[in-house]
Amino acid sequence: MNGAEILMTTALESGIKVCFSNPGTTEMPLLAALDSTPGMRGVLGMFEGVCTGAADGYGRMKDSPAMTLLHLGPGLGNGLANLHNARRADTPIVNLIGDHATWHLAADAPLTMDIESIAKTVGVTQRLDCLETLSQSTADAVHSAMSGQVVSLIVPHDVQWSEAQGLEIASPTASRANINADSVAEAAKILNDSSNALLLLGGAALRKEGLKFVEKIQEKTGCALLAETFPSHFERGAGSQQIDRLPYFPEKAIDVLSRYECIVSAGAPLPVSFFAYQGMPSFLINEQQKFASLESSPRAIPLALEHLEDALLKKGHDRRIAQNQFKNPELPQGELSGKKVSYILAAMQPDNAIIVDESVTSGGAYYQSSATAMPHSLITLTGGAIGYGMPCATGAAIACPDRPVFDFQADGSAMYTIQALWTQAREGLDVTTLLCSNRNYNILQMEYKRAGYRHMGEKARALTELDNPFLDWVGISKGMGVPAVSVDSAESLVTALKIAIEEPGPHLIEIPLPVR
Amino acid sequence: MNGAEILMTTALESGIKVCFSNPGTTEMPLLAALDSTPGMRGVLGMFEGVCTGAADGYGRMKDSPAMTLLHLGPGLGNGLANLHNARRADTPIVNLIGDHATWHLAADAPLTMDIESIAKTVGVTQRLDCLETLSQSTADAVHSAMSGQVVSLIVPHDVQWSEAQGLEIASPTASRANINADSVAEAAKILNDSSNALLLLGGAALRKEGLKFVEKIQEKTGCALLAETFPSHFERGAGSQQIDRLPYFPEKAIDVLSRYECIVSAGAPLPVSFFAYQGMPSFLINEQQKFASLESSPRAIPLALEHLEDALLKKGHDRRIAQNQFKNPELPQGELSGKKVSYILAAMQPDNAIIVDESVTSGGAYYQSSATAMPHSLITLTGGAIGYGMPCATGAAIACPDRPVFDFQADGSAMYTIQALWTQAREGLDVTTLLCSNRNYNILQMEYKRAGYRHMGEKARALTELDNPFLDWVGISKGMGVPAVSVDSAESLVTALKIAIEEPGPHLIEIPLPVR
Repeated sequence: MNGAEILMTTALESGIKVCFSNPGTTEMPLLAALDSTPGMRGVLGMFEGVCTGAADGYGRMKDSPAMTLLHLGPGLGNGLANLHNARRADTPIVNLIGDHATWHLAADAPLTMDIESIAKTVGVTQRLDCLETLSQSTADAVHSAMSGQVVSLIVPHDVQWSEAQGLEIASPTASRANINADSVAEAAKILNDSSNALLLLGGAALRKEGLKFVEKIQEKTGCALLAETFPSHFERGAGSQQIDRLPYFPEKAIDVLSRYECIVSAGAPLPVSFFAYQGMPSFLINEQQKFASLESSPRAIPLALEHLEDALLKKGHDRRIAQNQFKNPELPQGELSGKKVSYILAAMQPDNAIIVDESVTSGGAYYQSSATAMPHSLITLTGGAIGYGMPCATGAAIACPDRPVFDFQADGSAMYTIQALWTQAREGLDVTTLLCSNRNYNILQMEYKRAGYRHMGEKARALTELDNPFLDWVGISKGMGVPAVSVDSAESLVTALKIAIEEPGPHLIEIPLPVR
Repeated sequence: MNGAEILMTTALESGIKVCFSNPGTTEMPLLAALDSTPGMRGVLGMFEGVCTGAADGYGRMKDSPAMTLLHLGPGLGNGLANLHNARRADTPIVNLIGDHATWHLAADAPLTMDIESIAKTVGVTQRLDCLETLSQSTADAVHSAMSGQVVSLIVPHDVQWSEAQGLEIASPTASRANINADSVAEAAKILNDSSNALLLLGGAALRKEGLKFVEKIQEKTGCALLAETFPSHFERGAGSQQIDRLPYFPEKAIDVLSRYECIVSAGAPLPVSFFAYQGMPSFLINEQQKFASLESSPRAIPLALEHLEDALLKKGHDRRIAQNQFKNPELPQGELSGKKVSYILAAMQPDNAIIVDESVTSGGAYYQSSATAMPHSLITLTGGAIGYGMPCATGAAIACPDRPVFDFQADGSAMYTIQALWTQAREGLDVTTLLCSNRNYNILQMEYKRAGYRHMGEKARALTELDNPFLDWVGISKGMGVPAVSVDSAESLVTALKIAIEEPGPHLIEIPLPVR
């Protein structure tokens, strides 16, 4: 076996089954090793941001890592934004980044770059220089990734092609749940003592295995519940408890949080403003409010919640959280708006759908309206780096081929990683993209006003408007092999969505919207 | 004036006129400052790789920097690959990278990232934390960039919005040509002493101001001439000396270089193999060969050549370099091939055209066939990070609105930064894209064979073929606002190219090619 085969075999035996790939010359042995490793699937992305975003979507659905295969520093750079989002989602990913042969680095050939410096900004990095420890290092990388990290392995070209005899294939050590008992005790004390506490939920606390303990904790203590603004994967809809989310803008978030004397976080970071604003604090909790956080590795949050529930006393209280009942709302009619699109998607999404939300300003109404929709997984933009929706939907569909995927997508952000459509077509994925075309970076126009500028000059306007020319999403989508239609009313959206749901394979629906 | 206005004003007064922008919330004051700085043009790219690649093309044509406006670490990551290419081309660029307010970094808000670590991989980096020195730092950055560097300025949000009174706007210190006289003397000794010397040309040595001294040096000494494999900007065609280029694959490059006893480089790096191959050296010159390099800042190479010419003795010799005469070759007919496309472009390109070459394997015949074409600027992929062609052509067209630009473009690499088409449409740029669609990463299939693999398995094949579905380039291009046609013969290519040359604005011609 050569190094590339050892690496692929170890990855497969460690549970990795998919490699989202955009290879180059320095990855040829790894490409060949894909062929000699039955059970390892290769999926081509025509841009690295597609590969890394797909690995993020895959990891969020599976709780186990996919690999990416990237070509030196430039390939990693192209994939960096979606790895950043993955880092903020605690998604397990293993990147394989090919590099020049060890002895070729001194030549400073044109593609030579400081890969480590780039990779370390999104997680743990290791250069696999040694053939003897290659298998163990790979298994260790999978183990590290499983704890909720992006792990980048830099694999020199000569290590890939070098032959090794009689090496054993290593296995990852079993992951141990890592929980800080003191933090559980502190949280329990707060929830036992306070009659006005909030349990702020994020990460795996918003998955079924976490929510079942959340429900019990709420029943015992009467605490309020709130989800973080951008959950990585929230299992919700009819049959779940009604859980609002922390508002995006700091004024509203402070208003909501200020209602509580104490806040206990389970899987959510300390609430902070997404951006800085003059006269507005970074931290959204004031000094009078108590804050405690369940400290654990990201995947162990449900177990930490279980321990917490064990430590709680049953109190008399009058805060009952409603259970969402399935509502089949009347479908909106007439002229399209972001609100109507949100309602229609919530009303029509089939049972067990995966919703990837990168609708930005267009889909503001979706979260509320889908609370009573069929049970579903909601995936959101954790790291703020736009261009995650289409790739993430692609990876989620590969992770869960039996579940329909809907990418609720804004136009501006779609353009960053538009190449994902081709991968959806090639792999025949059941992804329906609802492309909200408002032909503006509307969020920037809002933020411009928030920054105190009353009048938008010609140049600033031109840099926030996606007009002159308008993008023809039907043409672009069909050009990449995904059937597409444009709709001009709520009724025609309903018709198009019905067809997309019934027909197998990917679809794109262009939804021209007025700027709100 | 606030910090953003000070920065924009300083940049303008330092000679920067264009800002290729993809802004976000942390760049709103800079966006507003664009409006209050008449003379500074903003150009929107719908992806950061478009902005950085355009800045590369602009800088290569103008020898003075454009700015980019990027949104935190993810925006820089998205633009990194083309900044890497720019670094390898010694292109002057000033990146403005917005960051959170200084006091907001402690909150570790979702978009927070280690920007410095990413930026330093492509050049010089400075964080502009201080309002008082902001103008001087900006002027210094332009000065640094002018020496042939990518300079990244990280501009905190609060520094942009803070008001300063009575600050003076700084100017860059005049650039001084930086030449190592010893290296000139050493090169002169070699060329005076050896009857079998090669002058290897790169960077600014391949520009008119360098080539005029190259011609004199050749006449005096009889040295051979060769261009580096991937020139950043080569002014050539009819009326210039016939200068071959160093072959790409190391076997052929060694063969060519081994003919010479001594090699003097002017602006070209020490010749090395692009990739490592088993049994092949990294360095392509052997130990018996003398090597010397003119050491100077990239822009001072023509001056170094002038000094060198002064130090040379006139020798009797019999190596005469032919002057290229304009040849109007017969246009090929019938079935399309990469060779025929190369011939047609070379034959039809108007005087003073700019050719951006990212044709990879399809355009192998272009370099030779265009030696006798109308005088033109040839721009090539210096850093090996594909996805530079469309953005670079965009920037070159903005730099030189009176010159027709041709992007000789492969399909696989086009997909990385396909969003550039929209910018070409919006700005009405005279860019004609010859899109060679061979529906394969053909170079990878060649490299796979070179790596010793005889049979390509199903998975490796699927990761190097761009089929199932084929991309419809006409649909994609029109979808982004660029008129497009597909051609099916040499004759129809000639017709389409004629129309594209005559009509103003951008065009794309899809050229389906067999894999060679």
